[in-house]
Amino acid sequence: MNLKAEIVAVGTELLSPFFQDTNSLFLTAGLNSLGLTVSFKTIVGDEQDDLLRAVRSAMARSRLILIMGGLGPTEDDRTRETVAKALGRKLVFRKDLLSVIRERFRSRGLVMSASNLKQCRVIEGAEVLANPHGTAPGLWIETSRHRIALLPGPPRELCPMFDGHVLPRLAAAGRGLTLRRVLKLTGIGESMMETRLRGVYAEVPRPVTVTTLAVPGDLSIHLTYQGPGPEAEARALLDGLERKIASRLSPWIYSAAGERLEEVVGRLLKERGMTLACAESCTGGLIGHRLTEVPGSSAYFLESAVVYSDRAKSRRLGVPASLIEGRGAVSAAVARAMAVGVRKACRADIGLAVTGIAGPGGGSPRKPVGLVYLALSRESGTIVRKRLFFGGRSQVKAQSAQAALDILRKALRKRGPTNI
Amino acid sequence: MNLKAEIVAVGTELLSPFFQDTNSLFLTAGLNSLGLTVSFKTIVGDEQDDLLRAVRSAMARSRLILIMGGLGPTEDDRTRETVAKALGRKLVFRKDLLSVIRERFRSRGLVMSASNLKQCRVIEGAEVLANPHGTAPGLWIETSRHRIALLPGPPRELCPMFDGHVLPRLAAAGRGLTLRRVLKLTGIGESMMETRLRGVYAEVPRPVTVTTLAVPGDLSIHLTYQGPGPEAEARALLDGLERKIASRLSPWIYSAAGERLEEVVGRLLKERGMTLACAESCTGGLIGHRLTEVPGSSAYFLESAVVYSDRAKSRRLGVPASLIEGRGAVSAAVARAMAVGVRKACRADIGLAVTGIAGPGGGSPRKPVGLVYLALSRESGTIVRKRLFFGGRSQVKAQSAQAALDILRKALRKRGPTNI
Repeated sequence: MNLKAEIVAVGTELLSPFFQDTNSLFLTAGLNSLGLTVSFKTIVGDEQDDLLRAVRSAMARSRLILIMGGLGPTEDDRTRETVAKALGRKLVFRKDLLSVIRERFRSRGLVMSASNLKQCRVIEGAEVLANPHGTAPGLWIETSRHRIALLPGPPRELCPMFDGHVLPRLAAAGRGLTLRRVLKLTGIGESMMETRLRGVYAEVPRPVTVTTLAVPGDLSIHLTYQGPGPEAEARALLDGLERKIASRLSPWIYSAAGERLEEVVGRLLKERGMTLACAESCTGGLIGHRLTEVPGSSAYFLESAVVYSDRAKSRRLGVPASLIEGRGAVSAAVARAMAVGVRKACRADIGLAVTGIAGPGGGSPRKPVGLVYLALSRESGTIVRKRLFFGGRSQVKAQSAQAALDILRKALRKRGPTNI
Repeated sequence: MNLKAEIVAVGTELLSPFFQDTNSLFLTAGLNSLGLTVSFKTIVGDEQDDLLRAVRSAMARSRLILIMGGLGPTEDDRTRETVAKALGRKLVFRKDLLSVIRERFRSRGLVMSASNLKQCRVIEGAEVLANPHGTAPGLWIETSRHRIALLPGPPRELCPMFDGHVLPRLAAAGRGLTLRRVLKLTGIGESMMETRLRGVYAEVPRPVTVTTLAVPGDLSIHLTYQGPGPEAEARALLDGLERKIASRLSPWIYSAAGERLEEVVGRLLKERGMTLACAESCTGGLIGHRLTEVPGSSAYFLESAVVYSDRAKSRRLGVPASLIEGRGAVSAAVARAMAVGVRKACRADIGLAVTGIAGPGGGSPRKPVGLVYLALSRESGTIVRKRLFFGGRSQVKAQSAQAALDILRKALRKRGPTNI
């Protein structure tokens, strides 16, 4: 059965600039595990007319609808009434629920308030889904066309109810198997990646979809198999597709397993038994921060000298003041001296350095904002790269850190000390 | 004019368990600033039939529709075509856009790829919204019933286009006044904050709402006035409420203007004409990264020594190896020696140091994961604080950096060198 699934999140706070629905990520993961995909998500407030419109839109376009929120005891909670209206059904009072809710209060030494009475009203023909973690029971409705779940909003109530009552009811509706693979790329722009992928798209086998995602300096290609299986066949399809993509894009792919660049670099450093020291100017510590997000990074990461001032560059790393004065702090020569200097000062196998102009101030026609020099030094030699990044201060910093880690990755991939 | 507003976010990745639309928060804040509220948010994938259904639902229930994503050069990008179809309009090729996009590539020394041609196609009758930060132009369409904006997905393209071109077009449609004030707090837990706020909630004046938001180590209280104005009256209401909240929570409030802690600290350092050097162990560079996110931070931030290894702590900062061996790298004595050491080595007015156990490994019964020592040193004296944070590696790092910046803030707020 091919169910188009829609998630409807109800709550006025979810329409403010400060709160976000995150429950839907959990529900999506569960649906995906059965091979079901989500086609729409709708977020709507507590206002009844709006909620009715949202439920009607969902019923017109989707056959499986998960509605969460608005099952509480307050005036604002109108999901039950609204879905009943959309279905043209009545609400019926369920005495058995009354005793469950009353008992819940009693067991906590509390008295049930009159407002909780509305939680005993149930859409005609619906199954009640027990809620051991709150007073709002869930509802499950099957019609000739729809399957609809009404679920409570708080995650500690929602999650066990979904896992325990909704997923089992959907298992039979699942379409088989969902397998994902995430290729991560850096050092290439989005349109160049798309141009190179063009031939591949035409050859993507039927149950696989390819989607791409880009943030400055970091791209991903998601391959999703969604089909009947068996798993070995699905894997073989993804393997074949991955090979085709790699044949066009391998220089830029840093992971075929969705890893972050700092994880890849950390693994390579560990494998090679090498140590790293960094000298950061415009990145301000971001490279060190990213490297140390990886558990166990103390095995290879010794130190980062965040040398923001010119004096620090000289004093810490032995970059001659005359060099900084002559070439400027943002120059290939200073980047090189920083990388060599930090490697020697820290007795590390590799020194990695970044100096650049993050902006918004400090740029000039010859040295614009976004100009960055990156250097990597080993005992066998030092390389320097020049880059020009676009975007605001944060974006320039982020892209600089990413580029530095990628230069490190490329150096580590190659065998032999002279090959950097 | 009462416009029901809907935000439609387009992108298959937004329907996976791994990605979330966050752009809509930014758009909502902008709409709210004009007194416009969002009634619906829809998230839909790249599949054209689904997108068409979503656009049609939106047009049936909303009069102001902001659609973002799907304007790129790839096969997947179908927003232009789909909205044209929903409106019953044609796409027309705009030569002037071709030269703009081509020039964009040329200025970067790149050749425009053929796939970018589709970005020159425009819905008949639409106004083109310039995109100085990318190749996808935005579109603005007014019909007798609808106002529709098509906007690019990447935030660095979306945000300036929305602020520069969409908000001004909507200014006349605003329904009154929305004023917000954001109090930021740190060093206090969420439930303690709520307990102290309890009395305040009952006295919140009618057109103001109070919502709170918490992430580990950082809380905010949002005061929102939404009403007829006039502005002076709205401000007076918010001022009164702010005073009430401050009387209960002032020790923990670091900003009443929604600033980030690094901005507050940067401003204070600048005002005092003081310089700062940091010694970071478990934060790995995060403090330096945060400080340097603020433009102009080079005026006061000299250097951060990210001394991840014990040897680096001794060599860089002069922390005696015997002290590290005797007390452990994570100890009050070592934190103190780091702060003093980095202040002296960098000839800074203030030395700020952090050492702790970020986990998941490295903990012991006596020194568990999450144990952190923070120290601040001035010529007049040094203070050390001990904290225990909960959460994973990233959370411990984040809370440690936040606590360090807050100690710095408190020291800077006080007058006189002996008062830290």
